[in-house]
Amino acid sequence: MLKLYYAPGTCALASHIALEEVGATYTTERLDFKANQQNSPEYIKINPKGRVPALVTDRGVLTETPAMLAFIAQSFPKAKLAPLDDPFAFAQVQSINSYLCSTVHVAHAHKMRGARWATEETSFADMKRKVSETVGASFALIERDMLRGPWVMGEQYTICDPYLFTIAGWLEGDGVDLAGLPKVAEHRKRMSERSAVKKVLAEEKA
Amino acid sequence: MLKLYYAPGTCALASHIALEEVGATYTTERLDFKANQQNSPEYIKINPKGRVPALVTDRGVLTETPAMLAFIAQSFPKAKLAPLDDPFAFAQVQSINSYLCSTVHVAHAHKMRGARWATEETSFADMKRKVSETVGASFALIERDMLRGPWVMGEQYTICDPYLFTIAGWLEGDGVDLAGLPKVAEHRKRMSERSAVKKVLAEEKA
Repeated sequence: MLKLYYAPGTCALASHIALEEVGATYTTERLDFKANQQNSPEYIKINPKGRVPALVTDRGVLTETPAMLAFIAQSFPKAKLAPLDDPFAFAQVQSINSYLCSTVHVAHAHKMRGARWATEETSFADMKRKVSETVGASFALIERDMLRGPWVMGEQYTICDPYLFTIAGWLEGDGVDLAGLPKVAEHRKRMSERSAVKKVLAEEKA
Repeated sequence: MLKLYYAPGTCALASHIALEEVGATYTTERLDFKANQQNSPEYIKINPKGRVPALVTDRGVLTETPAMLAFIAQSFPKAKLAPLDDPFAFAQVQSINSYLCSTVHVAHAHKMRGARWATEETSFADMKRKVSETVGASFALIERDMLRGPWVMGEQYTICDPYLFTIAGWLEGDGVDLAGLPKVAEHRKRMSERSAVKKVLAEEKA
């Protein structure tokens, strides 16, 4: 049995959608970030990083979204969420997810999480001012080079799609104009019409 | 035929070592970062991100270290650089590599690359001051929870090892005391004794 720890509005949404898409049997547990539950002694035992998502499996706990998404795709191969028999195509999928994780999410995190990398309020304000530029530049590259359409990898829906959808959901808050990103906007709309996405969003927003 | 673009002192070292370990037939091309060659029009055609590493394959270019490392492991399965037939163990490998990429490397990058996320010199100085703390905290977690020994995943040498070795090579420069990280220090020493590592380091330092 799988158990996903998540908090609404976080990148855990990507793994949540993927679990739903593959038809996994899983439960969820929501953490209250306002109460700092991600740093509670109970949760630190599950994920010492004090972050979400974390996926509890029969063999242990997994963290880090790109690893979890590949795990879900490999554990439910019939759902065809990744090109598992083609190392090059699989690497393309993983390259996009790694970029979303280490560049795009990190750029976004400088809006609210500046204290991870600096100490002064003036630095936090400086970082915050640059977020629309850095996230905007990342998404300009995604729009131009990474989103084949209708899904990220083309005709086949993959683990890139819920991850892109999740991070693209932060664009307005990051001050990036969606008008310059028609393919990203269309992808977000197409994603929001999937039944798995509707179901997961309803649960996370409840 | 594979061709790796790298620059000395960068995370490209991880993929370089992995290519050597699997016995791949490959060539390398060194970029001169001091001359900003990573942003030259010729290189931007290869990697629009203006970063290293980039791996040119017969089917196209791959970027992002975690994706490239998994690609190398999957393309040369006899080298057993990843538990390819075990989705959970593979996810553990990928989780460590994703953490190295999106948390540890990112923490380190705030020392010299603050301009990615802020604008003011005072912010860069503030970020720089925090690097020993953030990188130190990441490595404390690696020392305690992620490095099984003798290799990262235990008895089996995997794609986690060249990546950890690469980033651990930055510890002194980041102001982190290796005395508090005996397993990491021992791992670095063990790595530096491998013939593939010696060969690659000799080439990168030539």
